[in-house]
Amino acid sequence: MSKLLRVEALTPAGFAPFGDVIEADAAATHCAVNAGTATRYHDLARIDTAGESGRTALSLFRAAPRDLPFRVAMLERHPLGSQAFVPLGEARYAVVVAADPAAPPRAFLAQRQGINYRRGVWHHPLIVLDRITDFLCIDRAGTGENCDEVSLAQEWVLDLT
Amino acid sequence: MSKLLRVEALTPAGFAPFGDVIEADAAATHCAVNAGTATRYHDLARIDTAGESGRTALSLFRAAPRDLPFRVAMLERHPLGSQAFVPLGEARYAVVVAADPAAPPRAFLAQRQGINYRRGVWHHPLIVLDRITDFLCIDRAGTGENCDEVSLAQEWVLDLT
Repeated sequence: MSKLLRVEALTPAGFAPFGDVIEADAAATHCAVNAGTATRYHDLARIDTAGESGRTALSLFRAAPRDLPFRVAMLERHPLGSQAFVPLGEARYAVVVAADPAAPPRAFLAQRQGINYRRGVWHHPLIVLDRITDFLCIDRAGTGENCDEVSLAQEWVLDLT
Repeated sequence: MSKLLRVEALTPAGFAPFGDVIEADAAATHCAVNAGTATRYHDLARIDTAGESGRTALSLFRAAPRDLPFRVAMLERHPLGSQAFVPLGEARYAVVVAADPAAPPRAFLAQRQGINYRRGVWHHPLIVLDRITDFLCIDRAGTGENCDEVSLAQEWVLDLT
């Protein structure tokens, strides 16, 4: 029988075991640039793509919204590199991660924020809400098998409650 | 006396001498992912950050809009790495580049598209129009002096005409 997966707010502290939250937070290192007309929030995610002859790739994802309640029945991980997603504009999406496939997953609700999965972190593909959403994706290109996928013994049902 | 700098539409072919246009273009390599619910437009920019012990850094820029007509009096370049900017949502901004500081610059109007300056390409800091705009920036972190700046002998005035 499936269990209910409750959605938490996405915060840097809560997400820290899994990766980075990418947002223009006053707590981040920032400085004025371009003759004072812009602010740079610097180096917000640990991009880890260079191992085993990898390189950083920049891609766009166009993702369709999913219906709630949503059945979480699988997870994947990228053993060779980090993977970041940043929505291009207003967006709500759920980020599901787990310490390992047998552990209870956690779900975070991102609102305009981006996220960066650390190398090897088990996660569900993005669960986009509301509307078709474009994301910039920053991950690894290179040789080697960089995607493991697993079906969960215990299914979870994600909902906003 | 300043000269008029006319603004061209931003297209991959027009911008090719200077770098990449980042957009979900049907001409790009793309494939279905996430059980058919998303499309990945793959590897849209040549991220060139690894030289001389560099690494990829992910930052956010929050840029104030500039008034038109806009005086273009300087250029900069990053000799050690590429630099990409992708607006987070609807945005219009002008991208000014030049083959060298003595050559006539070219100006492109980006509308929601992102751009990636190739390593060493002379450019003006982004000229944002309309409203405060957030950009994701993908460039190089690491040791070494990675910004050259030059004042132009000939000033240019950019306007939408």
